[in-house]
Amino acid sequence: MTRFALKIEYGGMGFSGWQSQKEAPSIQGQIETALEKTLGSKVRITGAGRTDSGVHATGQVAHLDLDKDITPFRLSEALNYHLKPDLISITAAAAVGDTFHARFTATERRYLYRIIARRAPVTKDRGWVWQINNPLDIERMQSAANHLVGHHDFTTFRSTLCQAQSPVKTLDRVEVLHRRETGCDIYDFHLTARSFLHNQVRSIVGTLERVGAGSWQPKDVADALNAKSRAACGPVAPPDGLFLTDVIYPEDPFAATQVP
Amino acid sequence: MTRFALKIEYGGMGFSGWQSQKEAPSIQGQIETALEKTLGSKVRITGAGRTDSGVHATGQVAHLDLDKDITPFRLSEALNYHLKPDLISITAAAAVGDTFHARFTATERRYLYRIIARRAPVTKDRGWVWQINNPLDIERMQSAANHLVGHHDFTTFRSTLCQAQSPVKTLDRVEVLHRRETGCDIYDFHLTARSFLHNQVRSIVGTLERVGAGSWQPKDVADALNAKSRAACGPVAPPDGLFLTDVIYPEDPFAATQVP
Repeated sequence: MTRFALKIEYGGMGFSGWQSQKEAPSIQGQIETALEKTLGSKVRITGAGRTDSGVHATGQVAHLDLDKDITPFRLSEALNYHLKPDLISITAAAAVGDTFHARFTATERRYLYRIIARRAPVTKDRGWVWQINNPLDIERMQSAANHLVGHHDFTTFRSTLCQAQSPVKTLDRVEVLHRRETGCDIYDFHLTARSFLHNQVRSIVGTLERVGAGSWQPKDVADALNAKSRAACGPVAPPDGLFLTDVIYPEDPFAATQVP
Repeated sequence: MTRFALKIEYGGMGFSGWQSQKEAPSIQGQIETALEKTLGSKVRITGAGRTDSGVHATGQVAHLDLDKDITPFRLSEALNYHLKPDLISITAAAAVGDTFHARFTATERRYLYRIIARRAPVTKDRGWVWQINNPLDIERMQSAANHLVGHHDFTTFRSTLCQAQSPVKTLDRVEVLHRRETGCDIYDFHLTARSFLHNQVRSIVGTLERVGAGSWQPKDVADALNAKSRAACGPVAPPDGLFLTDVIYPEDPFAATQVP
Protein backbone atom coordinates (compact mmCIF):
# COMPACT_ATOMS: atom_id res chain seq x y z
CA MET A 1 0.00 0.00 0.00
CA THR A 2 1.47 3.35 -1.00
CA ARG A 3 0.07 6.70 0.07
CA PHE A 4 0.07 9.41 -2.56
CA ALA A 5 -0.43 13.14 -2.17
CA LEU A 6 -1.96 15.17 -5.00
CA LYS A 7 -1.83 18.92 -5.54
CA ILE A 8 -4.99 20.01 -7.29
CA GLU A 9 -6.14 23.10 -9.16
CA TYR A 10 -9.77 23.69 -10.13
CA GLY A 11 -12.50 26.11 -11.06
CA GLY A 12 -15.43 25.64 -8.68
CA MET A 13 -18.13 26.81 -11.11
CA GLY A 14 -20.47 24.02 -12.14
CA PHE A 15 -19.48 21.83 -9.19
CA SER A 16 -21.27 21.26 -5.91
CA GLY A 17 -17.96 21.96 -4.15
CA TRP A 18 -15.07 19.74 -3.08
CA GLN A 19 -17.11 17.15 -1.28
CA SER A 20 -18.99 14.32 -2.97
CA GLN A 21 -22.71 15.06 -3.19
CA LYS A 22 -25.50 12.99 -4.63
CA GLU A 23 -27.14 15.93 -6.43
CA ALA A 24 -24.35 17.52 -8.44
CA PRO A 25 -20.83 16.58 -9.53
CA SER A 26 -18.16 17.49 -6.99
CA ILE A 27 -14.42 17.98 -7.40
CA GLN A 28 -13.72 14.99 -5.16
CA GLY A 29 -16.26 12.89 -7.08
CA GLN A 30 -14.78 13.76 -10.48
CA ILE A 31 -11.28 12.87 -9.29
CA GLU A 32 -12.54 9.60 -7.82
CA THR A 33 -14.22 8.81 -11.16
CA ALA A 34 -10.93 9.55 -12.97
CA LEU A 35 -9.15 7.28 -10.47
CA GLU A 36 -11.60 4.49 -11.20
CA LYS A 37 -11.00 4.91 -14.95
CA THR A 38 -7.25 4.85 -14.33
CA LEU A 39 -7.09 1.92 -11.91
CA GLY A 40 -10.20 -0.09 -12.63
CA SER A 41 -11.34 0.02 -9.02
CA LYS A 42 -12.92 2.50 -6.62
CA VAL A 43 -10.56 4.60 -4.48
CA ARG A 44 -11.53 7.33 -2.00
CA ILE A 45 -9.52 10.51 -1.64
CA THR A 46 -9.28 12.84 1.35
CA GLY A 47 -8.93 16.56 0.76
CA ALA A 48 -7.29 19.17 2.97
CA GLY A 49 -10.15 21.65 2.69
CA ARG A 50 -13.80 21.25 1.79
CA THR A 51 -14.32 24.20 -0.54
CA ASP A 52 -17.91 25.26 -1.28
CA SER A 53 -19.69 25.30 -4.62
CA GLY A 54 -18.14 27.94 -6.90
CA VAL A 55 -14.95 28.24 -4.83
CA HIS A 56 -11.68 27.61 -6.70
CA ALA A 57 -8.30 26.19 -5.78
CA THR A 58 -4.79 26.57 -7.07
CA GLY A 59 -3.25 24.47 -4.31
CA GLN A 60 -5.78 22.03 -2.84
CA VAL A 61 -4.09 18.89 -1.47
CA ALA A 62 -5.55 15.39 -1.17
CA HIS A 63 -4.23 11.95 -0.31
CA LEU A 64 -5.16 8.42 -1.30
CA ASP A 65 -3.86 4.87 -0.76
CA LEU A 66 -3.08 2.55 -3.67
CA ASP A 67 -1.91 -1.04 -3.73
CA LYS A 68 -1.00 -0.68 -7.38
CA ASP A 69 2.52 -0.18 -8.71
CA ILE A 70 2.33 3.22 -10.38
CA THR A 71 4.69 6.21 -10.32
CA PRO A 72 3.34 9.55 -9.10
CA PHE A 73 4.02 11.01 -12.56
CA ARG A 74 2.04 8.29 -14.37
CA LEU A 75 -0.76 8.69 -11.85
CA SER A 76 -1.07 12.46 -12.41
CA GLU A 77 -0.82 12.07 -16.19
CA ALA A 78 -3.57 9.45 -16.24
CA LEU A 79 -5.81 11.49 -13.93
CA ASN A 80 -5.38 14.63 -16.03
CA TYR A 81 -6.24 12.62 -19.14
CA HIS A 82 -9.46 11.29 -17.61
CA LEU A 83 -10.41 14.61 -15.97
CA LYS A 84 -10.75 16.41 -19.31
CA PRO A 85 -12.71 18.52 -20.13
CA ASP A 86 -13.40 19.41 -16.50
CA LEU A 87 -11.58 22.44 -15.09
CA ILE A 88 -9.71 20.18 -12.67
CA SER A 89 -5.98 19.60 -12.98
CA ILE A 90 -3.45 17.59 -10.97
CA THR A 91 -0.40 19.87 -10.83
CA ALA A 92 1.80 17.64 -8.66
CA ALA A 93 1.83 14.11 -7.26
CA ALA A 94 4.15 12.42 -4.79
CA ALA A 95 4.51 9.24 -2.80
CA VAL A 96 4.36 10.12 0.90
CA GLY A 97 4.73 8.32 4.21
CA ASP A 98 1.62 6.69 5.64
CA THR A 99 1.50 9.20 8.51
CA PHE A 100 0.78 11.97 6.02
CA HIS A 101 -2.86 13.05 6.16
CA ALA A 102 -3.98 15.82 3.78
CA ARG A 103 -6.40 17.26 6.32
CA PHE A 104 -5.01 16.47 9.76
CA THR A 105 -1.29 17.05 9.27
CA ALA A 106 -1.81 20.42 7.56
CA THR A 107 -0.43 23.23 9.72
CA GLU A 108 -1.62 26.19 7.67
CA ARG A 109 -4.15 27.04 4.97
CA ARG A 110 -3.93 30.09 2.73
CA TYR A 111 -6.80 31.65 0.88
CA LEU A 112 -6.94 34.45 -1.67
CA TYR A 113 -10.14 36.41 -2.26
CA ARG A 114 -10.17 38.69 -5.31
CA ILE A 115 -12.48 41.65 -5.93
CA ILE A 116 -12.42 43.66 -9.15
CA ALA A 117 -14.01 47.10 -9.31
CA ARG A 118 -15.18 48.31 -12.68
CA ARG A 119 -18.47 49.11 -14.32
CA ALA A 120 -18.28 47.07 -17.53
CA PRO A 121 -18.84 43.30 -17.03
CA VAL A 122 -15.58 41.37 -16.83
CA THR A 123 -14.96 38.87 -19.63
CA LYS A 124 -11.72 36.90 -19.13
CA ASP A 125 -12.17 36.44 -15.38
CA ARG A 126 -15.93 35.99 -15.27
CA GLY A 127 -16.72 33.48 -12.52
CA TRP A 128 -13.17 33.84 -11.11
CA VAL A 129 -13.62 37.16 -9.31
CA TRP A 130 -16.25 39.15 -7.39
CA GLN A 131 -17.05 42.14 -9.55
CA ILE A 132 -18.32 45.32 -7.92
CA ASN A 133 -18.92 48.70 -9.55
CA ASN A 134 -16.97 51.20 -7.46
CA PRO A 135 -13.45 51.35 -6.00
CA LEU A 136 -12.91 50.53 -2.32
CA ASP A 137 -10.89 52.32 0.35
CA ILE A 138 -7.90 50.10 1.02
CA GLU A 139 -6.74 51.82 4.24
CA ARG A 140 -10.18 51.49 5.84
CA MET A 141 -10.35 47.81 4.91
CA GLN A 142 -6.86 47.04 6.25
CA SER A 143 -7.60 48.92 9.45
CA ALA A 144 -10.77 46.85 9.91
CA ALA A 145 -8.97 43.63 8.98
CA ASN A 146 -6.38 44.21 11.71
CA HIS A 147 -9.12 43.75 14.34
CA LEU A 148 -9.56 40.17 13.12
CA VAL A 149 -5.96 39.00 13.24
CA GLY A 150 -5.18 36.80 16.24
CA HIS A 151 -6.97 34.32 18.49
CA HIS A 152 -10.71 35.06 18.59
CA ASP A 153 -14.18 33.58 18.85
CA PHE A 154 -15.32 33.90 15.21
CA THR A 155 -19.00 33.00 15.78
CA THR A 156 -19.96 36.18 13.89
CA PHE A 157 -18.00 35.09 10.84
CA ARG A 158 -19.05 31.47 10.45
CA SER A 159 -22.01 29.86 8.75
CA THR A 160 -24.81 28.66 10.99
CA LEU A 161 -24.23 25.32 9.22
CA CYS A 162 -20.60 25.17 10.38
CA GLN A 163 -19.84 21.82 12.01
CA ALA A 164 -16.62 22.80 13.78
CA GLN A 165 -16.76 22.03 17.51
CA SER A 166 -15.33 25.41 18.51
CA PRO A 167 -15.74 28.86 16.91
CA VAL A 168 -12.34 29.87 18.30
CA LYS A 169 -9.61 30.14 15.67
CA THR A 170 -6.32 31.96 15.19
CA LEU A 171 -6.12 34.16 12.09
CA ASP A 172 -2.45 34.71 11.26
CA ARG A 173 -2.86 37.09 8.35
CA VAL A 174 -5.59 39.27 6.87
CA GLU A 175 -3.91 41.52 4.35
CA VAL A 176 -5.52 43.55 1.58
CA LEU A 177 -3.36 44.35 -1.45
CA HIS A 178 -4.48 46.73 -4.17
CA ARG A 179 -3.29 47.17 -7.73
CA ARG A 180 -4.52 48.79 -10.90
CA GLU A 181 -4.55 46.71 -14.06
CA THR A 182 -5.76 47.94 -17.45
CA GLY A 183 -7.91 50.61 -15.88
CA CYS A 184 -9.47 48.41 -13.16
CA ASP A 185 -8.96 48.30 -9.41
CA ILE A 186 -8.14 44.84 -8.13
CA TYR A 187 -8.22 43.97 -4.41
CA ASP A 188 -6.54 40.78 -3.22
CA PHE A 189 -7.42 39.65 0.29
CA HIS A 190 -4.87 37.20 1.73
CA LEU A 191 -6.02 35.14 4.72
CA THR A 192 -3.92 32.58 6.55
CA ALA A 193 -4.78 30.31 9.48
CA ARG A 194 -4.16 26.78 10.67
CA SER A 195 -7.79 26.11 9.80
CA PHE A 196 -10.91 28.06 8.95
CA LEU A 197 -14.57 27.86 9.89
CA HIS A 198 -17.27 27.26 7.28
CA ASN A 199 -17.79 30.45 5.24
CA GLN A 200 -15.27 32.31 7.40
CA VAL A 201 -13.29 33.86 4.54
CA ARG A 202 -16.37 34.89 2.58
CA SER A 203 -18.01 36.31 5.73
CA ILE A 204 -14.91 38.35 6.53
CA VAL A 205 -14.39 39.62 2.97
CA GLY A 206 -18.07 40.50 2.55
CA THR A 207 -17.88 42.53 5.75
CA LEU A 208 -14.58 44.21 4.81
CA GLU A 209 -16.06 45.18 1.44
CA ARG A 210 -18.78 47.11 3.29
CA VAL A 211 -16.01 48.95 5.17
CA GLY A 212 -14.17 49.69 1.92
CA ALA A 213 -17.36 50.98 0.33
CA GLY A 214 -17.94 53.33 3.26
CA SER A 215 -21.14 51.93 4.76
CA TRP A 216 -19.32 50.36 7.75
CA GLN A 217 -16.66 51.97 9.93
CA PRO A 218 -13.48 49.92 10.61
CA LYS A 219 -14.42 49.91 14.30
CA ASP A 220 -17.78 48.30 13.45
CA VAL A 221 -15.86 45.15 12.50
CA ALA A 222 -14.33 44.94 15.98
CA ASP A 223 -17.83 45.37 17.44
CA ALA A 224 -19.18 42.66 15.12
CA LEU A 225 -16.43 40.27 16.22
CA ASN A 226 -17.09 41.02 19.89
CA ALA A 227 -20.83 40.48 19.42
CA LYS A 228 -20.10 36.76 18.80
CA SER A 229 -23.36 36.59 16.89
CA ARG A 230 -23.94 35.55 13.29
CA ALA A 231 -26.49 38.36 12.99
CA ALA A 232 -23.68 40.91 13.44
CA CYS A 233 -21.90 39.78 10.26
CA GLY A 234 -21.97 41.77 7.03
CA PRO A 235 -23.12 40.18 3.77
CA VAL A 236 -21.30 36.98 2.78
CA ALA A 237 -19.15 37.50 -0.34
CA PRO A 238 -19.99 35.28 -3.34
CA PRO A 239 -17.86 32.17 -3.93
CA ASP A 240 -16.50 33.41 -7.29
CA GLY A 241 -13.56 35.38 -5.90
CA LEU A 242 -12.29 32.72 -3.49
CA PHE A 243 -9.22 30.50 -4.06
CA LEU A 244 -7.63 27.93 -1.75
CA THR A 245 -4.05 28.69 -2.77
CA ASP A 246 -1.82 26.73 -0.37
CA VAL A 247 -1.93 24.01 2.23
CA ILE A 248 1.22 23.90 4.33
CA TYR A 249 2.69 20.78 5.99
CA PRO A 250 5.67 20.30 8.34
CA GLU A 251 7.46 18.94 5.25
CA ASP A 252 6.40 19.90 1.70
CA PRO A 253 5.19 16.60 0.21
CA PHE A 254 5.82 17.90 -3.32
CA ALA A 255 9.32 19.32 -2.75
CA ALA A 256 10.99 16.77 -5.03
CA THR A 257 8.35 16.10 -7.66
CA GLN A 258 6.64 19.08 -9.27
CA VAL A 259 4.67 18.08 -12.35
CA PRO A 260 4.81 21.41 -14.28
CA MET B 1 -26.72 61.87 -36.73
CA THR B 2 -24.05 61.28 -34.10
CA ARG B 3 -21.09 58.97 -34.55
CA PHE B 4 -20.13 56.89 -31.54
CA ALA B 5 -16.94 54.95 -30.88
CA LEU B 6 -17.03 51.84 -28.68
CA LYS B 7 -14.13 50.11 -26.95
CA ILE B 8 -14.89 46.40 -26.74
CA GLU B 9 -13.54 43.46 -24.79
CA TYR B 10 -14.42 39.86 -25.60
CA GLY B 11 -13.56 36.20 -25.40
CA GLY B 12 -13.51 34.74 -28.92
CA MET B 13 -14.39 31.17 -27.91
CA GLY B 14 -17.82 30.11 -29.16
CA PHE B 15 -17.96 32.90 -31.77
CA SER B 16 -17.25 32.74 -35.48
CA GLY B 17 -14.98 35.76 -35.04
CA TRP B 18 -15.57 39.51 -35.19
CA GLN B 19 -17.36 39.56 -38.50
CA SER B 20 -21.01 38.69 -39.00
CA GLN B 21 -21.45 35.20 -40.42
CA LYS B 22 -24.57 33.32 -41.31
CA GLU B 23 -23.40 30.05 -39.71
CA ALA B 24 -22.39 31.01 -36.17
CA PRO B 25 -22.83 34.01 -33.89
CA SER B 26 -20.14 36.67 -34.30
CA ILE B 27 -19.00 39.41 -31.97
CA GLN B 28 -20.22 42.06 -34.41
CA GLY B 29 -23.54 40.26 -34.82
CA GLN B 30 -24.12 39.99 -31.06
CA ILE B 31 -23.41 43.69 -30.58
CA GLU B 32 -25.72 44.60 -33.47
CA THR B 33 -28.45 42.44 -31.87
CA ALA B 34 -27.89 44.25 -28.56
CA LEU B 35 -28.10 47.59 -30.41
CA GLU B 36 -31.42 46.55 -31.96
CA LYS B 37 -32.75 45.63 -28.50
CA THR B 38 -31.55 48.98 -27.17
CA LEU B 39 -32.75 51.22 -30.00
CA GLY B 40 -35.59 49.28 -31.61
CA SER B 41 -33.98 49.48 -35.06
CA LYS B 42 -31.13 47.83 -36.94
CA VAL B 43 -27.74 49.57 -36.83
CA ARG B 44 -24.49 48.35 -38.41
CA ILE B 45 -21.17 48.72 -36.66
CA THR B 46 -17.68 48.86 -38.18
CA GLY B 47 -14.78 47.30 -36.32
CA ALA B 48 -11.10 48.23 -36.42
CA GLY B 49 -9.91 44.65 -36.81
CA ARG B 50 -11.61 41.47 -37.99
CA THR B 51 -10.41 38.97 -35.41
CA ASP B 52 -10.80 35.27 -36.24
CA SER B 53 -12.86 32.68 -34.40
CA GLY B 54 -11.39 32.04 -30.95
CA VAL B 55 -9.33 35.25 -30.94
CA HIS B 56 -9.95 37.63 -28.02
CA ALA B 57 -9.84 41.39 -27.57
CA THR B 58 -9.27 43.72 -24.66
CA GLY B 59 -9.26 46.86 -26.83
CA GLN B 60 -11.22 46.31 -30.05
CA VAL B 61 -12.72 49.57 -31.35
CA ALA B 62 -15.86 50.02 -33.47
CA HIS B 63 -17.97 52.94 -34.64
CA LEU B 64 -21.64 53.41 -35.46
CA ASP B 65 -24.00 56.22 -36.41
CA LEU B 66 -27.17 56.97 -34.46
CA ASP B 67 -29.92 59.53 -35.01
CA LYS B 68 -31.19 58.93 -31.49
CA ASP B 69 -30.55 61.19 -28.52
CA ILE B 70 -28.56 58.96 -26.15
CA THR B 71 -25.47 59.63 -24.07
CA PRO B 72 -22.40 57.40 -24.61
CA PHE B 73 -22.73 56.20 -21.01
CA ARG B 74 -26.38 55.17 -21.41
CA LEU B 75 -25.50 53.48 -24.70
CA SER B 76 -22.73 51.35 -23.18
CA GLU B 77 -24.86 50.50 -20.13
CA ALA B 78 -27.76 49.35 -22.31
CA LEU B 79 -25.48 47.33 -24.61
CA ASN B 80 -23.77 45.60 -21.67
CA TYR B 81 -27.20 44.76 -20.24
CA HIS B 82 -28.36 43.18 -23.50
CA LEU B 83 -25.03 41.44 -24.19
CA LYS B 84 -25.27 39.27 -21.08
CA PRO B 85 -24.41 36.42 -20.69
CA ASP B 86 -22.04 36.64 -23.69
CA LEU B 87 -18.36 37.27 -22.90
CA ILE B 88 -18.58 40.63 -24.69
CA SER B 89 -18.28 43.89 -22.78
CA ILE B 90 -18.33 47.56 -23.81
CA THR B 91 -15.59 49.12 -21.67
CA ALA B 92 -15.82 52.67 -23.07
CA ALA B 93 -18.07 54.71 -25.34
CA ALA B 94 -17.67 58.22 -26.75
CA ALA B 95 -19.27 60.61 -29.23
CA VAL B 96 -16.73 61.28 -31.98
CA GLY B 97 -16.51 63.50 -35.07
CA ASP B 98 -17.95 62.10 -38.28
CA THR B 99 -14.48 61.83 -39.82
CA PHE B 100 -13.57 59.15 -37.26
CA HIS B 101 -13.53 55.70 -38.81
CA ALA B 102 -12.68 52.74 -36.52
CA ARG B 103 -10.82 50.94 -39.29
CA PHE B 104 -9.44 53.57 -41.65
CA THR B 105 -8.28 56.27 -39.23
CA ALA B 106 -6.42 53.75 -37.01
CA THR B 107 -2.68 54.37 -37.14
CA GLU B 108 -1.52 51.38 -35.11
CA ARG B 109 -2.77 48.02 -33.89
CA ARG B 110 -1.29 46.10 -30.97
CA TYR B 111 -1.63 42.38 -30.39
CA LEU B 112 -0.59 40.19 -27.49
CA TYR B 113 -0.05 36.46 -27.94
CA ARG B 114 0.33 34.41 -24.74
CA ILE B 115 1.92 30.97 -24.42
CA ILE B 116 2.01 29.07 -21.13
CA ALA B 117 4.40 26.16 -20.65
CA ARG B 118 3.45 23.53 -18.11
CA ARG B 119 2.48 19.92 -18.17
CA ALA B 120 -0.76 19.92 -16.14
CA PRO B 121 -3.76 21.28 -18.07
CA VAL B 122 -4.48 24.94 -17.27
CA THR B 123 -7.77 25.65 -15.54
CA LYS B 124 -8.34 29.38 -14.98
CA ASP B 125 -7.00 30.44 -18.38
CA ARG B 126 -8.27 27.54 -20.46
CA GLY B 127 -9.18 28.92 -23.89
CA TRP B 128 -7.31 32.16 -23.16
CA VAL B 129 -3.78 30.91 -23.74
CA TRP B 130 -1.83 28.47 -25.93
CA GLN B 131 -0.60 25.76 -23.59
CA ILE B 132 2.54 23.83 -24.47
CA ASN B 133 4.40 21.28 -22.35
CA ASN B 134 8.00 22.48 -22.24
CA PRO B 135 9.72 25.82 -21.63
CA LEU B 136 10.98 27.86 -24.60
CA ASP B 137 14.31 29.60 -25.16
CA ILE B 138 13.54 33.31 -24.96
CA GLU B 139 16.86 34.56 -26.42
CA ARG B 140 16.51 32.38 -29.52
CA MET B 141 12.94 33.57 -30.06
CA GLN B 142 13.84 37.25 -29.68
CA SER B 143 16.79 36.85 -32.01
CA ALA B 144 14.50 35.27 -34.62
CA ALA B 145 11.82 37.91 -34.04
CA ASN B 146 14.29 40.71 -34.77
CA HIS B 147 14.52 39.50 -38.40
CA LEU B 148 10.83 40.31 -38.81
CA VAL B 149 10.81 43.88 -37.51
CA GLY B 150 10.66 46.49 -40.27
CA HIS B 151 9.26 46.84 -43.78
CA HIS B 152 8.97 43.44 -45.47
CA ASP B 153 7.01 41.29 -47.87
CA PHE B 154 5.18 39.00 -45.40
CA THR B 155 3.80 36.53 -47.95
CA THR B 156 5.27 33.68 -45.86
CA PHE B 157 3.34 34.81 -42.80
CA ARG B 158 -0.13 35.41 -44.19
CA SER B 159 -3.05 33.10 -44.79
CA THR B 160 -3.64 32.06 -48.40
CA LEU B 161 -7.14 33.45 -47.79
CA CYS B 162 -5.77 36.91 -46.96
CA GLN B 163 -7.57 39.57 -49.01
CA ALA B 164 -5.07 42.40 -48.52
CA GLN B 165 -3.92 43.85 -51.86
CA SER B 166 -0.25 43.84 -50.85
CA PRO B 167 1.74 41.45 -48.63
CA VAL B 168 4.11 44.30 -47.74
CA LYS B 169 3.72 45.60 -44.19
CA THR B 170 5.83 47.36 -41.59
CA LEU B 171 6.16 45.53 -38.26
CA ASP B 172 7.14 48.07 -35.61
CA ARG B 173 7.58 45.70 -32.68
CA VAL B 174 7.98 41.97 -32.11
CA GLU B 175 9.03 41.54 -28.52
CA VAL B 176 8.94 38.39 -26.40
CA LEU B 177 8.65 38.83 -22.64
CA HIS B 178 9.01 35.95 -20.20
CA ARG B 179 7.91 35.60 -16.60
CA ARG B 180 7.40 32.80 -14.12
CA GLU B 181 4.08 32.68 -12.29
CA THR B 182 3.12 30.01 -9.74
CA GLY B 183 5.59 27.55 -11.20
CA CYS B 184 4.71 28.10 -14.87
CA ASP B 185 6.61 29.81 -17.67
CA ILE B 186 4.57 32.46 -19.45
CA TYR B 187 5.67 34.00 -22.77
CA ASP B 188 4.01 37.20 -23.96
CA PHE B 189 4.60 38.13 -27.60
CA HIS B 190 3.90 41.81 -28.29
CA LEU B 191 3.37 42.74 -31.93
CA THR B 192 2.68 46.25 -33.21
CA ALA B 193 2.02 47.50 -36.76
CA ARG B 194 -0.17 49.99 -38.56
CA SER B 195 -2.08 46.99 -39.88
CA PHE B 196 -1.65 43.23 -40.09
CA LEU B 197 -2.27 40.58 -42.74
CA HIS B 198 -4.74 37.73 -42.17
CA ASN B 199 -3.23 35.20 -39.72
CA GLN B 200 0.03 37.18 -39.60
CA VAL B 201 0.40 37.20 -35.81
CA ARG B 202 -0.47 33.52 -35.41
CA SER B 203 1.84 32.57 -38.29
CA ILE B 204 4.71 34.51 -36.74
CA VAL B 205 4.15 33.20 -33.20
CA GLY B 206 3.74 29.61 -34.38
CA THR B 207 7.06 29.91 -36.20
CA LEU B 208 8.83 31.60 -33.27
CA GLU B 209 7.60 28.83 -30.96
CA ARG B 210 9.44 26.31 -33.14
CA VAL B 211 12.59 28.42 -32.70
CA GLY B 212 12.08 28.57 -28.93
CA ALA B 213 11.55 24.79 -28.79
CA GLY B 214 14.82 24.25 -30.66
CA SER B 215 13.59 22.68 -33.90
CA TRP B 216 14.21 25.89 -35.94
CA GLN B 217 17.28 28.10 -35.87
CA PRO B 218 16.73 31.87 -35.50
CA LYS B 219 18.28 32.33 -38.95
CA ASP B 220 15.69 29.95 -40.46
CA VAL B 221 13.08 32.64 -39.77
CA ALA B 222 15.02 35.16 -41.90
CA ASP B 223 15.20 32.54 -44.67
CA ALA B 224 11.48 31.84 -44.36
CA LEU B 225 10.72 35.57 -44.66
CA ASN B 226 12.98 35.90 -47.69
CA ALA B 227 11.36 32.86 -49.34
CA LYS B 228 8.14 34.92 -49.71
CA SER B 229 6.24 31.65 -49.82
CA ARG B 230 3.44 30.44 -47.57
CA ALA B 231 5.00 26.98 -47.66
CA ALA B 232 8.05 28.32 -45.80
CA CYS B 233 5.97 29.28 -42.72
CA GLY B 234 6.03 27.28 -39.49
CA PRO B 235 2.81 25.94 -37.95
CA VAL B 236 0.10 28.54 -37.32
CA ALA B 237 -0.44 29.10 -33.58
CA PRO B 238 -3.98 28.39 -32.30
CA PRO B 239 -6.34 31.35 -31.80
CA ASP B 240 -6.62 30.84 -28.02
CA GLY B 241 -3.56 32.88 -27.05
CA LEU B 242 -4.27 35.92 -29.23
CA PHE B 243 -5.63 39.26 -27.99
CA LEU B 244 -6.23 42.49 -29.90
CA THR B 245 -5.20 44.82 -27.07
CA ASP B 246 -5.09 48.31 -28.55
CA VAL B 247 -6.10 50.30 -31.59
CA ILE B 248 -4.36 53.66 -31.77
CA TYR B 249 -5.78 56.82 -33.40
CA PRO B 250 -4.26 60.28 -33.97
CA GLU B 251 -6.48 61.37 -31.05
CA ASP B 252 -7.69 58.89 -28.40
CA PRO B 253 -11.49 58.86 -28.88
CA PHE B 254 -11.97 57.66 -25.29
CA ALA B 255 -9.65 60.14 -23.56
CA ALA B 256 -12.47 61.93 -21.76
CA THR B 257 -14.99 59.15 -21.16
CA GLN B 258 -13.75 55.85 -19.72
CA VAL B 259 -16.59 53.65 -18.55
CA PRO B 260 -14.77 51.70 -15.79
